[in-house]
Amino acid sequence: MRLAELSERSGISTATVKYYLREGLLPPGRRVSATQAEYDESHLRRLRLIRALVQVGRLPVATVRDVLKNVDDTSLSQHSRIGSAVWALPHDSEPAEGDAETAEAERTSQALLTELGWGFSQSAGAESPAYRTLVGAISALRRLGYPCGTENLLPYARAAAQVAQSDLELVASYDDAEEQIEAAVACTVLYEPVLLSLRRLAEAEESDRRFGVGS
Amino acid sequence: MRLAELSERSGISTATVKYYLREGLLPPGRRVSATQAEYDESHLRRLRLIRALVQVGRLPVATVRDVLKNVDDTSLSQHSRIGSAVWALPHDSEPAEGDAETAEAERTSQALLTELGWGFSQSAGAESPAYRTLVGAISALRRLGYPCGTENLLPYARAAAQVAQSDLELVASYDDAEEQIEAAVACTVLYEPVLLSLRRLAEAEESDRRFGVGS
Repeated sequence: MRLAELSERSGISTATVKYYLREGLLPPGRRVSATQAEYDESHLRRLRLIRALVQVGRLPVATVRDVLKNVDDTSLSQHSRIGSAVWALPHDSEPAEGDAETAEAERTSQALLTELGWGFSQSAGAESPAYRTLVGAISALRRLGYPCGTENLLPYARAAAQVAQSDLELVASYDDAEEQIEAAVACTVLYEPVLLSLRRLAEAEESDRRFGVGS
Repeated sequence: MRLAELSERSGISTATVKYYLREGLLPPGRRVSATQAEYDESHLRRLRLIRALVQVGRLPVATVRDVLKNVDDTSLSQHSRIGSAVWALPHDSEPAEGDAETAEAERTSQALLTELGWGFSQSAGAESPAYRTLVGAISALRRLGYPCGTENLLPYARAAAQVAQSDLELVASYDDAEEQIEAAVACTVLYEPVLLSLRRLAEAEESDRRFGVGS
């Protein structure tokens, strides 16, 4: 298809598609003449992923470029491509280096991963941005005096494990390796607001049950 | 205690404590002389909540003021105080008004709440910011062509329900009504990065299991 059709089918203006091409987010089409190029379904899919990252995930273009570089790195195994693309997504605050609270939060995180038997995360350790975010979040809870022992964290981890199973089932439902990686990245980003808003709704239900008029 | 001790015990500089007093985030102390005031444990607790909202939740001061106004509204029931304080927290993107995708996402959300039996959320409906966020997130998934039927959303909702039960158990573990409300708000904010980072770690485990070298 030509640029105009790519724009129409993706719902993204031709000016923006050209911008993504210039910035290297979208691979160039196949040249058919000096002024025209031909695009295919892979371009359409890539635009869908870019929209998820830019519009829903609100990622800066430079970060999207890093994520896509990992998506496209065919020298890696399927697992590593998914992992490194998700690692390049922005994460929440990092822990402060080297203070006592962080060291204690690190011990809690290690104990939690052992209890869960999450060996992959344990061997990746501090290299994983999600692990560093977890340590940072636990040290914030500690500093503010809120409960954050492994017994408090386990229910969250078990819920996360259930969600991750659904996530990867969705990923595995795509036949093509490229599509699987794109779906893994998009769903990590797109399902975050789903999960957080459902948690708030569920909290309201639970609060109503415990403290509501009818309780 | 005097301002200096309040500052030391909370780990917040006296200049910042004075700023929070001026901005009305922290209620004034009890005047003991023309230049001195006396503060108590409730001020310490309130500073802890402010730190959670400002430093971890990165909320602007004006939003923190709105949240605290609801926390302090003793004309409301305990359930309503918790609810309205959490409603004042910032939420993710809102759905676009009145387009076909949003209407479809609204139907999906209603069907999901019915299936779950979440009557409180159903009656609060569009007034609840979390509900609007959910509709927005589902319509983003729809627009980008990712699966988002009730069967896809149910695993997330069930995980959210488990997490909410832990959240409210923690809230109920505090004896005092004020403390319960403060804990509800703080934990809603402080446990979000815990949940999201654990989901990413769990995804890595699940991806390793399905696509890793040993699989």
